[in-house]
Amino acid sequence: MIHFDSDYMETCHPLILEKLSKINLQKLSGYGTDDICETAKEKIRKACSCPEAEIFFLVGGTQTNATVLDGLLQKYEGVIAAKTGHIALHEAGAIEAGGHKVIELPCENGKLKARTIDDYCNTFFSDEACEHMVNPGVVYISQPTEYGTLYSLSEIQEISNVCKKHNQRLFVDGARLGYALGCPQNNVQLSDLAKLTDAFYIGGTKCGAMLGEAVVFPRPKTVPHFFTIIKQHGALLAKGWIAGIQFDTLFTDNLYLELGKNGVERANELEQFFKSKDYKIYIESPTNQKFVILENEKIKALKNSCTFSLWEKYDENHTVVRFATSWATTPQQIQELKKEL
Amino acid sequence: MIHFDSDYMETCHPLILEKLSKINLQKLSGYGTDDICETAKEKIRKACSCPEAEIFFLVGGTQTNATVLDGLLQKYEGVIAAKTGHIALHEAGAIEAGGHKVIELPCENGKLKARTIDDYCNTFFSDEACEHMVNPGVVYISQPTEYGTLYSLSEIQEISNVCKKHNQRLFVDGARLGYALGCPQNNVQLSDLAKLTDAFYIGGTKCGAMLGEAVVFPRPKTVPHFFTIIKQHGALLAKGWIAGIQFDTLFTDNLYLELGKNGVERANELEQFFKSKDYKIYIESPTNQKFVILENEKIKALKNSCTFSLWEKYDENHTVVRFATSWATTPQQIQELKKEL
Amino acid sequence: MIHFDSDYMETCHPLILEKLSKINLQKLSGYGTDDICETAKEKIRKACSCPEAEIFFLVGGTQTNATVLDGLLQKYEGVIAAKTGHIALHEAGAIEAGGHKVIELPCENGKLKARTIDDYCNTFFSDEACEHMVNPGVVYISQPTEYGTLYSLSEIQEISNVCKKHNQRLFVDGARLGYALGCPQNNVQLSDLAKLTDAFYIGGTKCGAMLGEAVVFPRPKTVPHFFTIIKQHGALLAKGWIAGIQFDTLFTDNLYLELGKNGVERANELEQFFKSKDYKIYIESPTNQKFVILENEKIKALKNSCTFSLWEKYDENHTVVRFATSWATTPQQIQELKKEL
Amino acid sequence: MIHFDSDYMETCHPLILEKLSKINLQKLSGYGTDDICETAKEKIRKACSCPEAEIFFLVGGTQTNATVLDGLLQKYEGVIAAKTGHIALHEAGAIEAGGHKVIELPCENGKLKARTIDDYCNTFFSDEACEHMVNPGVVYISQPTEYGTLYSLSEIQEISNVCKKHNQRLFVDGARLGYALGCPQNNVQLSDLAKLTDAFYIGGTKCGAMLGEAVVFPRPKTVPHFFTIIKQHGALLAKGWIAGIQFDTLFTDNLYLELGKNGVERANELEQFFKSKDYKIYIESPTNQKFVILENEKIKALKNSCTFSLWEKYDENHTVVRFATSWATTPQQIQELKKEL
Repeated sequence: MIHFDSDYMETCHPLILEKLSKINLQKLSGYGTDDICETAKEKIRKACSCPEAEIFFLVGGTQTNATVLDGLLQKYEGVIAAKTGHIALHEAGAIEAGGHKVIELPCENGKLKARTIDDYCNTFFSDEACEHMVNPGVVYISQPTEYGTLYSLSEIQEISNVCKKHNQRLFVDGARLGYALGCPQNNVQLSDLAKLTDAFYIGGTKCGAMLGEAVVFPRPKTVPHFFTIIKQHGALLAKGWIAGIQFDTLFTDNLYLELGKNGVERANELEQFFKSKDYKIYIESPTNQKFVILENEKIKALKNSCTFSLWEKYDENHTVVRFATSWATTPQQIQELKKEL
Repeated sequence: MIHFDSDYMETCHPLILEKLSKINLQKLSGYGTDDICETAKEKIRKACSCPEAEIFFLVGGTQTNATVLDGLLQKYEGVIAAKTGHIALHEAGAIEAGGHKVIELPCENGKLKARTIDDYCNTFFSDEACEHMVNPGVVYISQPTEYGTLYSLSEIQEISNVCKKHNQRLFVDGARLGYALGCPQNNVQLSDLAKLTDAFYIGGTKCGAMLGEAVVFPRPKTVPHFFTIIKQHGALLAKGWIAGIQFDTLFTDNLYLELGKNGVERANELEQFFKSKDYKIYIESPTNQKFVILENEKIKALKNSCTFSLWEKYDENHTVVRFATSWATTPQQIQELKKEL
Repeated sequence: MIHFDSDYMETCHPLILEKLSKINLQKLSGYGTDDICETAKEKIRKACSCPEAEIFFLVGGTQTNATVLDGLLQKYEGVIAAKTGHIALHEAGAIEAGGHKVIELPCENGKLKARTIDDYCNTFFSDEACEHMVNPGVVYISQPTEYGTLYSLSEIQEISNVCKKHNQRLFVDGARLGYALGCPQNNVQLSDLAKLTDAFYIGGTKCGAMLGEAVVFPRPKTVPHFFTIIKQHGALLAKGWIAGIQFDTLFTDNLYLELGKNGVERANELEQFFKSKDYKIYIESPTNQKFVILENEKIKALKNSCTFSLWEKYDENHTVVRFATSWATTPQQIQELKKEL
Repeated sequence: MIHFDSDYMETCHPLILEKLSKINLQKLSGYGTDDICETAKEKIRKACSCPEAEIFFLVGGTQTNATVLDGLLQKYEGVIAAKTGHIALHEAGAIEAGGHKVIELPCENGKLKARTIDDYCNTFFSDEACEHMVNPGVVYISQPTEYGTLYSLSEIQEISNVCKKHNQRLFVDGARLGYALGCPQNNVQLSDLAKLTDAFYIGGTKCGAMLGEAVVFPRPKTVPHFFTIIKQHGALLAKGWIAGIQFDTLFTDNLYLELGKNGVERANELEQFFKSKDYKIYIESPTNQKFVILENEKIKALKNSCTFSLWEKYDENHTVVRFATSWATTPQQIQELKKEL
């Protein structure tokens, strides 16, 4: 059986285990106050060209989205997101459980357009009844998106401008950020995110780590008492160094970038094969997730030898299917899959 | 100036004031435990042909929606509503502040179709990832809708069936229920709502009362400890009889129905006039709200002599406008308006 | 049967009904934007010598506490209150339902001491682990307290100073404020509250009105978007004038003060009688609530002729009992009660 | 520097790292659906003699308390806890952020008495106003407590009986459960907890694991849709096996018990030393936390060579101090500390 369901099916990069072994039986201070976390944060600050950045390590994506958004949002505010955004669909209502509406806007291939946000805000703030409605306060986007697509630098700049115009904060979910950074088409660097957003996170769980997401607030004190908010969300690791060590490793010698590249290269091999065999591509995605339309008969057969995700019904006889590669996918695994396809 | 902005611009029916005067300087027990409330509840039970019904008097619509939905929803559940539903748009995120997602579905003229709900639930419950998503738990509809349209009895029956099929509870927002009941096209009676829903409310604020919404749970113990939930929402009137006396009056001698009829008749006079003058009707609504497309120039001129609501932009030169009549609108007021139009 | 259970058993002062009759069948704009509310607010600003104050009319006490505290508190903060405070005990967890801890501190006769708050904050903020705990953000006191006792001006000044020292906001629950203002021992005026607090409310429901509490923010913009927060709490009256008219009446010709005085005078007549008959007073309370220790046998007998509240068990044979007078209690009712005692 | 501040300062038991190395570069299915989790669960079920138990792996203590209590509590309910309980003090209001009051009751040495709970419930449910108050729904205790003390089997039985009597569920926080199980004075086994409680958790983070708490519901379906509730709390590990592998290791060959024993034995060596030197013990605690009263001068001096926690001020010149040993504390470390004391 070969597995292409998801990029979190891997354990972690061997260098992380190695580091874990080295520190074992040391005593480390709690809650992320240890030296490993400090070193990791410093490396991330450098990678972001943002020496002032405040950095926090959390465990997983839904937790990070819920905690950061709770920190960024005022009580009367909601968060704008693409209809297909992770917080809108696949987080079991974590944002709403924290008291905030996810304002779902139409999107294209998983991407929110600056213009859509601008139109929404223009209409909202000119509505006579807007004080009776949920005030938009934060714009949430994912890079890459849930459909593997990428925002270009100019797109993010435009969104950032629209946010400033309407007094919105901008938050980027980077659960798969490694696969954006490792993608040849990408022109948005960490330093750009640091300049253009109010908060973003660098995903570890799907990009080489055992667990962990590194939240970056480019400007200090963006969220006062964020430490307490993390604790209140049950998101504070007693042993903060567990997450710290992941990022310390990933941000040494460009490992994070390298791992992302591998995922993308493998995915592109797969895509070229799909195209060469005239499989219908559902969405052109430059990163590590590829969405193909398969016949239901074909799917049944394939399931004997490999795993992948059923995304959505296409028509009576076809289904959209997602193949996800990862930092650990090998050329051999791609070869094996090709044989089955 | 003649006013057609809303049906809550009236004070209250004179008979209510009369009753208030009669009881003044009596001492009445608190929190709705008084005789006036009891009598009012009994009258409503009769009107609903539902002697078992549990009835609670709350103050306003948003409060009632938030409190009842909080009572009906489990923590992992959200509420299905039309995209144009009041809870989705105009309640400042009260449902989300209580921790629940409003699952917004497409609708036609403000109405949710049974089929839309069925499709959504079929897709949801067959999704491999559905445990990671907000479980739908309640279906919320408004009668009449926010666009003045009506569900027919067969439509509500279908929705009720779909709800049972998917283990959803059905809740009907009746903030303007009087204008449904008073409408010649309506074939859904209170007793039908009692049979087909898990909870609904009979709107007082917009239908003749000073304030008050009467929540009806046709089956006792639908929501255990609902009294405490009301208190927790800050929705418990110390002087419950204030709401009780409204409904005691409205449910004596068919007053509630009569008041609804007046609103609808006046609205229909207006609609006939619009049509006779070739105004473009935006939505065919049989109740007390009429949506017309007006030229922006016309709107500017009209604003000098009458008030109404700007609903939404239609095109560069036109806007959708709402005229709302009420139980208290007089034929003279309609005449005056006609002169201005 | 004569009733002394509570001060919200009355309907409302006749002048309010009179005003209601006068405006009937007028059309008034919604959500408190009408002229009646504006006039009422202006009268309250004058009574508070605080021309800048922002004023909002809500319906009841629990709702007001929950809404104002939600507005004043940051997400990582809780509210300090006396262990016997209304928000700590009798609001069904409304504050916690809004996400905030009530930090219960010891008190004397219902009163929080400035020193208790100071000690708590000193200990809290010097605790190594304070970032893992609920940060106190607001101090809540009631004037009069739940035991009918009063804070003196110097006590409130001290509390206000301690609040400033520890960066706490001060909020005063004035559900029974009329009985403080109408009390000869009281030396805290509305203008003092306006100077010394961040928010307070003037209780209507228990002090002559049908319903309504007037929230006063002495400094504008203390809570940004408070209107939307009210709506989100389901606390926005569509017909704001219903509350407005209560306060417009109560703040005309010193009526609010006069009504408070009557309640206190009747209560004092009762207290003198208790003392003359050697009933044991449980708490010396100068306002309209009197707490007496009665034999359980006596209580049983009394219940045939009058109503009152069982407060708490005193010992095996005795119970603490509360008699509450009100703005409407007559000397005759006191005479009747004396006969029964 | 020798460290006795906390039992979460250790990394993890070497066998865990070994297992992690063995599985590296395997692909494992997500969200705890992998075989490692299944094996670990089966081992725990056996250790609890409870083949029906539902088991979930979460990351940390505050998260586990917040998630399980949210699952167990109805919306109108609060949780009873000792005033010194972790959820009452050191979780940044996580329970309240989820909408529930922590009902703090007096305790002795960190322990709630069955009688205290019984008295509280008797008073509560006989209060005329109890529907206006937070209904107690769950009783929360910690084993060992925050002061290192232990409930005996008969004490837990009594508490369990009182819970049944008042329709309360019983939840045991076992963040340090290993140090109870490894203590000679302890007579409460895992199988007893399975019989007497509705839910409890077996702490990993402080007892040998890198992270992880194993929630045990002895009776299936105690909390419907708990998986979704976990996700909603941001507490669902994408890579569930990370927690699974910890417990798989700890529940092999009695490791969990052995590790607990070590912590307790080291702590007892320390305690004997304290007593031999006439240090004043603050609380007699049989487990791995020892509370001593030290002179402030002494504390200053000690801080140069070792770390420990300042618990609370004792008097002007003395402070209560906590020394915590752990599964990894060595006899040598105790020797070193003795030299400093």
